[in-house]
Amino acid sequence: MDAPVVVGSMALDSVKTPFGEVERVVGGAAVYASMAASLLAPPRVVGVVGGDFPQEALELLSRRGADLTGVKRIADGRSFYWSGVYDYDLADRRSLATDLNVFADFNPVLPDSYRGSRYCFLANIQPQVQLAVLAQLGASCFVMCDTMDYWIESEREMLLEVLSRVDLVLLNDGEVRQLADTPNLARAAERVLDMGPRFVVIKKGEYGAALVSREDYFSIPSYPLPNVVDPTGAGDSFAGGMIGLLARQDDCCNRELRRAVAFGTVIASACIEDFSLEGLKRLGGDELRRRYEALRELVRFEAMEWEEFLEEQ
Amino acid sequence: MDAPVVVGSMALDSVKTPFGEVERVVGGAAVYASMAASLLAPPRVVGVVGGDFPQEALELLSRRGADLTGVKRIADGRSFYWSGVYDYDLADRRSLATDLNVFADFNPVLPDSYRGSRYCFLANIQPQVQLAVLAQLGASCFVMCDTMDYWIESEREMLLEVLSRVDLVLLNDGEVRQLADTPNLARAAERVLDMGPRFVVIKKGEYGAALVSREDYFSIPSYPLPNVVDPTGAGDSFAGGMIGLLARQDDCCNRELRRAVAFGTVIASACIEDFSLEGLKRLGGDELRRRYEALRELVRFEAMEWEEFLEEQ
Repeated sequence: MDAPVVVGSMALDSVKTPFGEVERVVGGAAVYASMAASLLAPPRVVGVVGGDFPQEALELLSRRGADLTGVKRIADGRSFYWSGVYDYDLADRRSLATDLNVFADFNPVLPDSYRGSRYCFLANIQPQVQLAVLAQLGASCFVMCDTMDYWIESEREMLLEVLSRVDLVLLNDGEVRQLADTPNLARAAERVLDMGPRFVVIKKGEYGAALVSREDYFSIPSYPLPNVVDPTGAGDSFAGGMIGLLARQDDCCNRELRRAVAFGTVIASACIEDFSLEGLKRLGGDELRRRYEALRELVRFEAMEWEEFLEEQ
Repeated sequence: MDAPVVVGSMALDSVKTPFGEVERVVGGAAVYASMAASLLAPPRVVGVVGGDFPQEALELLSRRGADLTGVKRIADGRSFYWSGVYDYDLADRRSLATDLNVFADFNPVLPDSYRGSRYCFLANIQPQVQLAVLAQLGASCFVMCDTMDYWIESEREMLLEVLSRVDLVLLNDGEVRQLADTPNLARAAERVLDMGPRFVVIKKGEYGAALVSREDYFSIPSYPLPNVVDPTGAGDSFAGGMIGLLARQDDCCNRELRRAVAFGTVIASACIEDFSLEGLKRLGGDELRRRYEALRELVRFEAMEWEEFLEEQ
C-alpha cells in the first residue's frame, strides 16, 4: 500500500438544496477527497486553512490516518469560502460567493516526507499551481488531475501543459465536450487522450462515469439513490476513492483502474446522501463492501448461447 | 420461441441532423421495432400505411420473417409523415411536421393468427388505442408499452388505465420525472411501479438505460459510438430488441429482462449510426454478438478480497 498525495482546497461552505441548508460547514476538494481516500489508503494532504477552520475536522482526518504535515494553517487568515444554491433536481447549481481568502496565495509545498509518493490527486486549482506541484513529484508518480470549465476557457494553454504531464484527467461531460470542442463523448475523450493523459475519466453525475484509454473503455452507471441531499463534493469524493484504491493496490493497471472507478462511484454515493462530510463519516467498511457488490450486481447480465443463435441466422 | 406482436406507426420521415438530411424515408415506431425484433424473433406487425409507403420496405420486413397480416394498406391514403431537425449534439429535436394521415383513424385489429401471442410491444400511440389493443390480447400476454410527454400531459387518466394493465412501461428520463412528478429517477421509477406495471425501463439516451422492478434494479450505459448520425428510431429499436429477446427466450424472468435491455441497447446503437433503416439492415448476427459481448466487457469490474479489507478497518 502507498499513501497518496491529495492537493486542493480546504473550505467552509454554505449550501442550500431543496432538502435543507447548511452554513459554513467543512468542505473543499482536498477535504472530500481525503475523507474518501482514507477509506482505502492514508492520504497525505496538502492544503491551506485559516484560523476559522474547525480543529475537529483536522482531528477527524488525522484519526482516519491522514497525514496533515502538508496542511498550512494561517491563524490570522480566513479559510476559502464557497456558497451556492442547487435547483430542484440538483442538476444545476449557482455560486453565490467564492471568497478565496488564504487560498488566493496557495503555494503548495510538498513536505519531504511526501516526496516518494507514487500516487497523487491534484484537485481543481489554477493550472499554474498544478504545474508547481507536478514539479515536486517524482517522475514515476501516477498523477490524476481535475479541472473546471473556467480554466478550460481562461487558461487553456497552461491547462494543456498540465494535461501533457499527468496520467489521468477527470472531467465532467460538459467539460470534456468543451475541452475537445465536440459533442460526441466517445470522440471527445479520444481528443483529450491526444492532449497527453493516458486515461480520461468522464463524470456524468447521476448517469455514472466512464474510463477511457487507448486500450480500454469502461463505463458504469451511478449507484441508485432515492435520497440525494447535497451533491457538493461528489466529484472529489469520487476522485479520492479512485486514488485511494490505486494507492492501496499500488497498481494502476486496467483492472485496478476499473475497480477504482467503481470505488469512486460508491463512495461518492455516500457523500451526496447528506451535507458536508456527514455521509462519508457514516460510510463504514461493511456498507462500502455492500454497495460495491451491489454495483457489480446492478450491471450484470449474462452471455448468450451464441452457437445456437448464429446457426439460425 | 414466440412471435411477438408489434403495434404502432409506420411512417415516412424527413430528418435533418448535423450529419446529413433525408427526405421521406421509411420510419415509424412499428417499423423500427419490427426490424430490431426480427434479429431475434419474427414479429407480428400491426399498423397502417398509405399508397405512398414503399413496397420494398414491406418486402424487407417479410424477408426478415415479419408477419404483415396485421398491416393495412389504404391505397388512396397517405402514410403518417413526420419531419424533424436535430440540434448540434443530437440531444434535442424539433418537429417541423406531424401529418397523421391514415394513422389518424388507426384502429388496430389483431388478426386471429396473432391472438395467442405471449409477447407484445405497444409503441407510442394514443392511450385509447393502446387500450383497444390490450382488450384483444390474452390475459397471459407480456405487454410492454411506450408513451410520450404529450399523452402524460393531455391524457393522464387514460394513460394510467393503460399502465394498470401492462407489464412493463418504457419511458425516457424526462417522461418518468414528468409522470411521477419528482426529479429523482430512482424514486420516480418507484412511483411508476405504484401505478401498476411490474417493470419500468428508463431510457437515458446516450447515458444508457435502467430496468427497475420491486425485486431488481439493472442499469447499463449505452454502447459507445464515435459516429452517431441520426437518433430517430433509437427508442423503438431498443424496445423491439427487448421484445424480440423475450419472445425468443419465451421467458420474462429477471435474467432474460436484463439480457433484453442489453440487446435493446446494442440494437439501438446500430440504428443510430445511419438514417432510416440502413444501420439496422447492416447489423448481422456476428456484429450483434460482438457488440453484446463488448457491452458485457464495458461494464465488468472485479470483486475485492474483502476479508483482508475488512480486517484492516
